[in-house]
Amino acid sequence: MYKEMNMTKEEMIVTPWEVRGRIDYDKLVKQFGTKHLTDDLLERIKKHTRDLHYMLRRKIFFSHRDMDWILNEYEKGNKFFLYTGRAPSGPVHMGHLIPWLFTKWLQDKFDVELWFQFPDEEKFLFKEELTLDETERFTNDNMLDVIALGFNPNKTHFLIDTVHAKLMYKHACRIAKKITFSTAKAVFGYTNETNIGSIFYTAMQAVPAFLPSVLKGKNIPCLIPHAIDQDAHFRVARDVMQKLGYYKPAAIHCTFLPGLKGMMEQGKMSASEEQSAIFTTDSTEVVAEKIRKHAFSGGQATTEEQRKKGGNPDIDVSYQWLTFFEEDDRKLKEIRKYYKSGKMLTGELKNILIERINTFLKEHQRRRDKARDMLDKFIVRD
Amino acid sequence: MYKEMNMTKEEMIVTPWEVRGRIDYDKLVKQFGTKHLTDDLLERIKKHTRDLHYMLRRKIFFSHRDMDWILNEYEKGNKFFLYTGRAPSGPVHMGHLIPWLFTKWLQDKFDVELWFQFPDEEKFLFKEELTLDETERFTNDNMLDVIALGFNPNKTHFLIDTVHAKLMYKHACRIAKKITFSTAKAVFGYTNETNIGSIFYTAMQAVPAFLPSVLKGKNIPCLIPHAIDQDAHFRVARDVMQKLGYYKPAAIHCTFLPGLKGMMEQGKMSASEEQSAIFTTDSTEVVAEKIRKHAFSGGQATTEEQRKKGGNPDIDVSYQWLTFFEEDDRKLKEIRKYYKSGKMLTGELKNILIERINTFLKEHQRRRDKARDMLDKFIVRD
Repeated sequence: MYKEMNMTKEEMIVTPWEVRGRIDYDKLVKQFGTKHLTDDLLERIKKHTRDLHYMLRRKIFFSHRDMDWILNEYEKGNKFFLYTGRAPSGPVHMGHLIPWLFTKWLQDKFDVELWFQFPDEEKFLFKEELTLDETERFTNDNMLDVIALGFNPNKTHFLIDTVHAKLMYKHACRIAKKITFSTAKAVFGYTNETNIGSIFYTAMQAVPAFLPSVLKGKNIPCLIPHAIDQDAHFRVARDVMQKLGYYKPAAIHCTFLPGLKGMMEQGKMSASEEQSAIFTTDSTEVVAEKIRKHAFSGGQATTEEQRKKGGNPDIDVSYQWLTFFEEDDRKLKEIRKYYKSGKMLTGELKNILIERINTFLKEHQRRRDKARDMLDKFIVRD
Repeated sequence: MYKEMNMTKEEMIVTPWEVRGRIDYDKLVKQFGTKHLTDDLLERIKKHTRDLHYMLRRKIFFSHRDMDWILNEYEKGNKFFLYTGRAPSGPVHMGHLIPWLFTKWLQDKFDVELWFQFPDEEKFLFKEELTLDETERFTNDNMLDVIALGFNPNKTHFLIDTVHAKLMYKHACRIAKKITFSTAKAVFGYTNETNIGSIFYTAMQAVPAFLPSVLKGKNIPCLIPHAIDQDAHFRVARDVMQKLGYYKPAAIHCTFLPGLKGMMEQGKMSASEEQSAIFTTDSTEVVAEKIRKHAFSGGQATTEEQRKKGGNPDIDVSYQWLTFFEEDDRKLKEIRKYYKSGKMLTGELKNILIERINTFLKEHQRRRDKARDMLDKFIVRD
């Protein structure tokens, strides 16, 4: 079953539009010029939050830009706001939830405002076949998932690019004026065949990082929790924002939830590969079937062999998923031990994951059903 | 005084951002691939308008794209709408008024809707030193000049890009998706150092050419009266619009009012060279002084010589301006004759122009003062 081990290591590609290959996160930190989240920094965070979120304890959030500065300012009484987002191009899957679950924790612990962007033009511009009608439909659908996570409606502000363009376009132009095609080309890998909407788009993604400062008429620190693949946008935005007289936005980066089929085959879960993704609206039965059928196993070929040699949790997707969704460290440690020793079989491990995901989704889907009535509270009045 | 005749013919440059050199309009028709307005076409227009605007009679409007198609559709009962605009970057001068005066005539004669765009981000993006506060101030000022020309408030709709971005940005993205950097580079001469806002901008300029069709849910022909330097934008827009399933917008093009200092020195009047421009808010005295001092003369060095040899109206700016602002053909013909024969001196010719411009501006300024109260009637509700 260790066949992945023999695969040729595919070249790693991590851009806002493509994540491929076996991801080497240490290499990304170096390549992008971010910093590892050190234990010292985690201790500083803990001083304010009392406990540490399991995604911090497990280094799922593993990298940052200026997180220390955010804490310095916070300690001086200069509160930050949070900014994250979702480019709607399909239904929400479990991978999308990772940075949002953590963002909710940050909002609660630091009691701060959150600006949540739905750049509904992004995927329309980058994907040939996608229409604006479709992205609008996905936006309306995806917002329900965000609301279902329990964000504070009084402190959470949804920005939808085409709907809030009056609020955003002008400031996107301020950003855009300071970014040459040369820069966009170098950072995003654009070519002469890239369309001019895609080229402009990064300016729209930068706007929420300083819009609250513009609206309040004072410079407010911004912290952006996001998966590391979006770093290119903010690398550019940080430079420009400083030129415009605003703080550089800080960021805290997470790793990718692997697709069910394994970490080698895909860099991160993708909605376009349905068998490899679990969607937030999947039924109990579908979740069970997808995990049983597709979750890549780190176990042995036969029960006998598994009992004897044990499984490899480090490449086992079910185990990896539990590190993302099982908050209890003790429980996780036991599972690891039992699986590795052969005491636990692949089927048992999968059942634990199925149980965990379905428990989560049952509650999520209940809240999601009620979310439609709360949309007005979240969408910024334009 | 014929010193310009000896100047080396400077290379002609006609882009949306720069007009330089001695303009060869026939060459532009060829280069841009437009068509001359033929006498046959003028006759067809006259069938609907009864008389011909003096700018048509004098071929100030000299070129077009699909004007014959616009008439075909009109004759079938398929009315067009007009679209023109002004990118605010300074006060309005006499040169800006040329296409607008003609547009007003078209609106009256054909009884059609007019969409008037104020792309207030354009010059901000293209001019390093210009701020959005300044373009906003110029927008508010420039709108008064447009209203003062007497457009029908019930059929005229002002679109201001940053204000109406909610209405426009989404459709600009539809356009932008179909334009590669390669195309923008070839058509506008962009380089790797061009900023990404400028690169995107042409998509915003295209929007009013099909927005009325989008809003009304049916395909409506569009006619764009504009100075020929803007052709690049619509060359691209026509292609894209067709791909999106809309009519290609038609256009009718005018020549440039020369700056006071002459047609060789500058391709068209520019607000940035104050001595060479007359602004709509200039006082009677300032108008007189500017024309006396700066209007390039086609006359002789001395009165005696002028009486003997006569002046050259074809390079005399005062005479040229009268072709733009004196509607009476007979009067113009006489002036030409007298000036050419030496019967009329440069000073006399200049006085005629001063009288003409000041009469026009007196009325314009009176209406301009009242225009502020009418802004609400013109600006599209967003």
